[in-house]
Amino acid sequence: MAANDVKQELRNLIDERVAAVARRDAEALAAQQAGDVLAFNVLPPLRLQGVDQVAPQTEAWFDGYASGPGYEVRDLHVDADGDLGYCAFLYHVTGRLQSGQEVSMWVRATLVCRKRDGRWVIVHDHESIPWNPETGQGLAGLEPEKA
Amino acid sequence: MAANDVKQELRNLIDERVAAVARRDAEALAAQQAGDVLAFNVLPPLRLQGVDQVAPQTEAWFDGYASGPGYEVRDLHVDADGDLGYCAFLYHVTGRLQSGQEVSMWVRATLVCRKRDGRWVIVHDHESIPWNPETGQGLAGLEPEKA
Repeated sequence: MAANDVKQELRNLIDERVAAVARRDAEALAAQQAGDVLAFNVLPPLRLQGVDQVAPQTEAWFDGYASGPGYEVRDLHVDADGDLGYCAFLYHVTGRLQSGQEVSMWVRATLVCRKRDGRWVIVHDHESIPWNPETGQGLAGLEPEKA
Repeated sequence: MAANDVKQELRNLIDERVAAVARRDAEALAAQQAGDVLAFNVLPPLRLQGVDQVAPQTEAWFDGYASGPGYEVRDLHVDADGDLGYCAFLYHVTGRLQSGQEVSMWVRATLVCRKRDGRWVIVHDHESIPWNPETGQGLAGLEPEKA
């Protein structure tokens, strides 16, 4: 398969992810993940191992939003060789929490993917915001520079 | 090259990284990175693009420590296909800052690597700690569960 076609497959994976978040479809997100996915998520703990640990966190994330979450992807970079690929991007989360608080935050995401039985699945998912060691605060208010 | 040999090459990259931190050798760390490396680091900004942006942050990190930083890698996972590979691990940073403050924190790291001219270089580096949205604090005090 030509390199450009493989990259398009990975871009499609992200398009499906965006569409699944818009539907609040935790099941569709879980279906993108390998059974043994290793996740370093924005929220604790340090890591989650396996889709059985990740899926409840995804559902809790959706449940936390009264409106949204919006999920806008920016500056998507994809690459692959053979059956290993990755996606690195920023995403903008927006919406209103059940508490009434409005959310607008940018998150960094890295997805490492394996092609298994002809389809790409996420074997490792790392998502985060930066941290200010002087204040101890996570930096949820940073915005990417204009392209 | 056999899959196990490739994995060993990636493990060697991490061994060299650990040795370079022990020597406070920012130049050796920069030499592991692709010129156009995309870095999502623990510290802001949201992202750094290129070794010219990353290297000064590495040097500032070393300069911040009066003693250390110690850098212990745990639960290293590596995989590759062709000329694309990745390393996912936790590392434990220890030491004493110039301010006198003692540091002991666990960080999650994902390195995506490309084999170029026969050697592995880091094309994407994502490092982070989790975040507590209720307090706004970065969670620098989390420890991995016992294996």
